[in-house]
Amino acid sequence: MRILSHEIPSAVGQTVTVAGWVHRRRRLAAVSFLILRDRSGLSQIVVKSPEAQAQLDELGEETVVQVTGTVAANPQAPGGAEIVDPVVEPLTQPAQTPPIELWRPSVGAGLPVVLDNAPVALRHPAVRAGWEIAAAALHGFRTALDGQGFTEIQTPKIVGTATESGANVFALDYFGGPAYLAQSPQFYKQTMVGVFERVFEVGPVFRAEPHDTVRHLAEYVSLDAEFGFIRDHRDVLAVLRTTIAGMLSSVGERAAPALERLDVRLPEMPLDVPVLHFSEALKIAGADPDEPDLAPADERTIGEWALREHGSDFVAVEGYPMVKRPFYTHPQPSDPRWSNSFDLLFRGVELVTGGQRLHRYSDYVAAIEARGESPESYSSYLQAFKHGMPPHGGFAIGLERFVARLTGAENVREVTLFPRDLHRLTP
Amino acid sequence: MRILSHEIPSAVGQTVTVAGWVHRRRRLAAVSFLILRDRSGLSQIVVKSPEAQAQLDELGEETVVQVTGTVAANPQAPGGAEIVDPVVEPLTQPAQTPPIELWRPSVGAGLPVVLDNAPVALRHPAVRAGWEIAAAALHGFRTALDGQGFTEIQTPKIVGTATESGANVFALDYFGGPAYLAQSPQFYKQTMVGVFERVFEVGPVFRAEPHDTVRHLAEYVSLDAEFGFIRDHRDVLAVLRTTIAGMLSSVGERAAPALERLDVRLPEMPLDVPVLHFSEALKIAGADPDEPDLAPADERTIGEWALREHGSDFVAVEGYPMVKRPFYTHPQPSDPRWSNSFDLLFRGVELVTGGQRLHRYSDYVAAIEARGESPESYSSYLQAFKHGMPPHGGFAIGLERFVARLTGAENVREVTLFPRDLHRLTP
Repeated sequence: MRILSHEIPSAVGQTVTVAGWVHRRRRLAAVSFLILRDRSGLSQIVVKSPEAQAQLDELGEETVVQVTGTVAANPQAPGGAEIVDPVVEPLTQPAQTPPIELWRPSVGAGLPVVLDNAPVALRHPAVRAGWEIAAAALHGFRTALDGQGFTEIQTPKIVGTATESGANVFALDYFGGPAYLAQSPQFYKQTMVGVFERVFEVGPVFRAEPHDTVRHLAEYVSLDAEFGFIRDHRDVLAVLRTTIAGMLSSVGERAAPALERLDVRLPEMPLDVPVLHFSEALKIAGADPDEPDLAPADERTIGEWALREHGSDFVAVEGYPMVKRPFYTHPQPSDPRWSNSFDLLFRGVELVTGGQRLHRYSDYVAAIEARGESPESYSSYLQAFKHGMPPHGGFAIGLERFVARLTGAENVREVTLFPRDLHRLTP
Repeated sequence: MRILSHEIPSAVGQTVTVAGWVHRRRRLAAVSFLILRDRSGLSQIVVKSPEAQAQLDELGEETVVQVTGTVAANPQAPGGAEIVDPVVEPLTQPAQTPPIELWRPSVGAGLPVVLDNAPVALRHPAVRAGWEIAAAALHGFRTALDGQGFTEIQTPKIVGTATESGANVFALDYFGGPAYLAQSPQFYKQTMVGVFERVFEVGPVFRAEPHDTVRHLAEYVSLDAEFGFIRDHRDVLAVLRTTIAGMLSSVGERAAPALERLDVRLPEMPLDVPVLHFSEALKIAGADPDEPDLAPADERTIGEWALREHGSDFVAVEGYPMVKRPFYTHPQPSDPRWSNSFDLLFRGVELVTGGQRLHRYSDYVAAIEARGESPESYSSYLQAFKHGMPPHGGFAIGLERFVARLTGAENVREVTLFPRDLHRLTP
């Protein structure tokens, strides 16, 4: 019966079997060390007999081995215990030396090399740490929404019409006819508010982004939520706050070693997120009051303001001009130039966009016609609105971007398992 | 503060606010009833004043309303309580009469009408029940694997080469070059065994299925698991057993009303799933011993055998001929005509396929060359195997098919939110 590396310290004096990869070998004068890597971490195996040392010399890094031996306490060893008198059984020999030295504390290779060799590079504890945080965040997202009465949905990624705009959409051949990859589950999640009131979806979205930047991907994981019977976008912000708090708490509980390895300090989510109207935000940023959007420098200034005035890493800016928001956005009732939507900024960078949507059929027809488009081309989407939809809203979090912001990764590709972009379709 | 329908019985004597859709109106001589539908179920609102009755007459089915009134006990009402003296506030008027009478106990329309009108038809309690079971199954799948030390992954759906075979793959234009939609996460989940040892993924898979049958979809949700350090496929079957037991238990706990509405009896998952070798299965089915596969009638006979001999709704058939399995399948060591793979049958129908995979680089090269293909064209996939992979295996469950088998739905489309097939790309 195999035990894991992290269970070794509680098995002192016992004969145990562990299994994993040869992470590193170290030969000293009288003794050799085998550092074994398994899913729970590293363990130290002490090899003394000349025969076992000779065997170890033959086992290259990344050989898959099973080791049986006795656990001995040793304050110098990781976790305070190590395995002595081992019998090492190789399970699989590698066919090549790894392109990256996985045992070095930091990755000694540039991002292109890491990405080209992702199947192996992801084994490096510092590289896999990014995804450990992502997996914990996914768990926290679902748990938080489940706790708030949301139902999970899975909606089609092959769609008959471009979701939000005709631009940046991937086209495919669908049994001889045209189809597209969904840019977001926006239309479907709204539709499903009519069924379950509160829904969430975790799934891939596709953007044919012609930009080669550190933050754009052609495919990413979108964490979407949408729910009905709201007063306005402030209710959406409240659910978002609870959800991000749950994600952060899950990351703290489930990915603590990854946070430590990447030297990440988790932010506190305040009970009340400070909220600024877009027009106030422009003032604080010292921007022209007619600007329709916030520049990155403006967002940084607002982030500093939130930290200074409210001690908060988070700040919401509400009321973005309608002209900069998608057609289904609900206007601000008191002044329809503004919208009932918001951006949540984290440490001065946009993290999540959310807001209230239109809910009346006639409002959709008017909004679509105002774009010079025909409601006919949105007929599937509009079905739900023909038959009574409550006031509703929602938000979308890009998983990889969320993790990048949390870890301070400069390039979103650092925390994406197998990124897709303008130039990259493999591995 | 809004409460939900199912909370009404515990609020007798209190003034409450509920909100939802006008599910049905019933006018009797002296009194009218408004049946309100929200995400938790139905509630009854008693309307007596002539003004309120006149108002109710104007509110068509699917009007979104908010109702404030007093809760009164009434053994005749659903849950034993109803709302009296209501003030009804319409929130959204429908623009059209629903194409399906949602208030009828069973859906009075054929499947094509239901699918064409899915945004509204899914509001019917009997239609949405299918997805309630699916959502509960998703929760159970993740919880069961999380409890067994698995890490969630999300891998790309746009891939550079067809996953398992060149057939039935959707091609797309990727920034001017060719790309494909992933037919499964098979290659990526195996790769990630090298990183996390135990991984699962829930996500869409795409099959350009030219068959118009009751069980094929062009896009479906695949529940994938893969893990290392196994002895053989029997370890995979054991994890699958625990996982399906967890899914069934989650469905029982979280979707009880849906099960009741669809009159579904949940099966028991035995602690030990009966296992037959493929060659024995052919004998029991009375089939030719040289048959390379089980016909549907054979599977039914084996299902009956399992129920009769073992009192089990489940039975696994192991050792399927290698010629019928994908190239990465691990052969049966004692006789390489057979494979270390299995099908899990449920009530005589295939539910899940799983097995042990090859893990040595040289075995992959040989298997690919035996197909007359070049290892070069699998170079991304083979990276992981070049650098030491443990013996491993896994399985994949088609979500919609799983729910269809559980509910007895004749057509998998009945339990798919927005099906995609040869003829259907909307809604």
